[in-house]
Amino acid sequence: MSHDNPHDWWQRADLCYQDQQLYFSGHKVKQLAQQFGSPSFVYSASRIKANLERIRQALNNAGLGRRSTIYYAMKANRFAPLLRFLKQSGLCGIDACSPNEVRHAISCGFLPSEISFTATSLSQKDFSELARYDGLFMDCDSLHAIRCWGEMKPGSEIGIRINPAIGISRSCNEKLKYAGCGTTKFGIYYEQFEQALALAEQYDLIVRKIHFHTGCGYLSSELQQLDHVFTECMKFVNIAPDITRINIGGGLGVPHLADDQPLDLEQWSAVLHKHFAQGDMHIEVEPGDYICKDAGILLLNKTYIEQKRDTLFVGVDAGFNIAPEPAYYGLPFQPVPLLQDDTPLTAMTVVGNINEALDVWYVNAMLPSNLQQHDYLALINAGAYSSSMASNHCMRGEFNEFLLD
Amino acid sequence: MSHDNPHDWWQRADLCYQDQQLYFSGHKVKQLAQQFGSPSFVYSASRIKANLERIRQALNNAGLGRRSTIYYAMKANRFAPLLRFLKQSGLCGIDACSPNEVRHAISCGFLPSEISFTATSLSQKDFSELARYDGLFMDCDSLHAIRCWGEMKPGSEIGIRINPAIGISRSCNEKLKYAGCGTTKFGIYYEQFEQALALAEQYDLIVRKIHFHTGCGYLSSELQQLDHVFTECMKFVNIAPDITRINIGGGLGVPHLADDQPLDLEQWSAVLHKHFAQGDMHIEVEPGDYICKDAGILLLNKTYIEQKRDTLFVGVDAGFNIAPEPAYYGLPFQPVPLLQDDTPLTAMTVVGNINEALDVWYVNAMLPSNLQQHDYLALINAGAYSSSMASNHCMRGEFNEFLLD
Repeated sequence: MSHDNPHDWWQRADLCYQDQQLYFSGHKVKQLAQQFGSPSFVYSASRIKANLERIRQALNNAGLGRRSTIYYAMKANRFAPLLRFLKQSGLCGIDACSPNEVRHAISCGFLPSEISFTATSLSQKDFSELARYDGLFMDCDSLHAIRCWGEMKPGSEIGIRINPAIGISRSCNEKLKYAGCGTTKFGIYYEQFEQALALAEQYDLIVRKIHFHTGCGYLSSELQQLDHVFTECMKFVNIAPDITRINIGGGLGVPHLADDQPLDLEQWSAVLHKHFAQGDMHIEVEPGDYICKDAGILLLNKTYIEQKRDTLFVGVDAGFNIAPEPAYYGLPFQPVPLLQDDTPLTAMTVVGNINEALDVWYVNAMLPSNLQQHDYLALINAGAYSSSMASNHCMRGEFNEFLLD
Repeated sequence: MSHDNPHDWWQRADLCYQDQQLYFSGHKVKQLAQQFGSPSFVYSASRIKANLERIRQALNNAGLGRRSTIYYAMKANRFAPLLRFLKQSGLCGIDACSPNEVRHAISCGFLPSEISFTATSLSQKDFSELARYDGLFMDCDSLHAIRCWGEMKPGSEIGIRINPAIGISRSCNEKLKYAGCGTTKFGIYYEQFEQALALAEQYDLIVRKIHFHTGCGYLSSELQQLDHVFTECMKFVNIAPDITRINIGGGLGVPHLADDQPLDLEQWSAVLHKHFAQGDMHIEVEPGDYICKDAGILLLNKTYIEQKRDTLFVGVDAGFNIAPEPAYYGLPFQPVPLLQDDTPLTAMTVVGNINEALDVWYVNAMLPSNLQQHDYLALINAGAYSSSMASNHCMRGEFNEFLLD
């Protein structure tokens, strides 16, 4: 494992070069590529478990060992073997956001009582289906949702998704903001919260949980903002008499660029400790990215290398449609050669095979000038919001998925 | 048909209110919604045909009646009955960009010789499969592509996709630019064009076609820019001795907003006439949006209406994942009630059921204050780059498609 090269910032114990070969989760990646072909998403069960255990440890360090639960946001990656592995790990429940997600989670072994459900703009059909799952915990996102659920499940316990009107996100990426920056569709604002509580009471619903999800992909530099968000959210908790649980959402991010400072979970834990160690609230957290993103790589075949004007393009045989995050959110996936190569680094722009201008994997990645000799590239951080958001645009939607167990 | 209300700018003969009811292509939309349910894409074969015929007439008016071909860009919408209808119309061939698209077009009745193939970053596997279709016309996008195709099909006729380094797009939407704004992956720049011609000669390839695609969604206000682009592209044509065909790409847009001036095809025709009426070049055009976009509506069930702070939200039962254009490119789909309603108009923000901040269909649409009484909304302009780019994000990917014949 070598960090001499600043462009190898992504190396870690389970994803690094050994004897010139890239290894991922104990497997020689070149061999994986030869076996699986391209495009293939490869996920590491042990990395997923390590990520979960790290969050669990941080919750314990915050003094929340016995009163905290992790719900995995399955929208990040719903690959069935991966969900099955999570169930078997016993480390988390599921955060689901649609009736089909609930059904899929149950098909992978989760009980309805292990599922926290938080969604928006639910239809009557959605509510009817969800009402069939005894034990499923519903977070209501609007006054309307309280009414609908109240009619179907009077007397039950619910959560209310609130909107603290301030948000956090990785480097102020506006596209990822759930709260703040103008009114959003998510949750109930403070002005309407008492009305929401009264409405719940009208249906004999007991409001047990406050749920808030305030952003995506935050790192250490955003933790101070998280502290502010918690303070705002406690204003809701303090006026709701029956609350026993607080769901702080997900949003924990992973580094995408060499300059990104990873999220320091000790600091994260300290923020949680400050707000929640005292009292007896049960704390829920709903990470998606943090659990799966850096546990997945995308193996792609190189198609060509060609200079066009000032840019050296490296083509690969799949495009943004099978992993939209780099194109849509400006969060690039670092391309990594499968063989360590000490030829001088050259800026190359890695592009896909879709006829759209935004189909660019990475602008000016520093890659070995000898790349012509390489058959494959691995794109890191492809474990979340990639295959789960894939489309068949241009009929280029075929890919493989594998869980390394 | 009434245009009294500026918010009804979208009304036209085959999409308008009659006796208070919205009609689309001769069908009462409310009845379609009740039959098909939500979410449903409904396409009008007669509108598609009218759009095609309008382009055909414009080509004829440009003096290109006998030397022009329309290729439909199937990436816009590959719904099989729609492709079958296009084949039967006899008005167009197919613009395909992947081996699977070629296979699908053939399965819908097109001959390989009716398909113009233009893609980027093709793999060896792609080239091998494409080489099997005798008659398929290949536009090479890079020197690499010329080499690969030359090895497989020496002596054949090819096109070269060129990059004129200037581009056009609707209102300077950077995300839709294929050329201009820095180096892009598409086509061969002028500096390398002679090299490309020499390379083709080396493989006995005859360069018959110049292909350029310079932008997306242009309207009348961009036609002057199109004129410039043609001038630039002719520089390539003029130095390639064997050219007999020029493919001017697609990019013809349709209005999305009340203030948009529709593309004036007479003016478009005049630009073509200016550049191509003299001489004997065969002119190809590859529209996608223009043929299908305004021939499709998306029927959605309203889920709720609720005020949150300064915003009145209208929820519907599908999100941006089944029609990504509004969220990703900022091209909103005007929401239209199925019943004409003369209650005062109120600004409402129409949102979907996906847990992402960008899941917004339309910000501050002017809708009747009585909308609570309506069950459905129709989103217009949903005929292109919608279902073809749909994903199963949040497992909310189910929808129906219907072609009204």
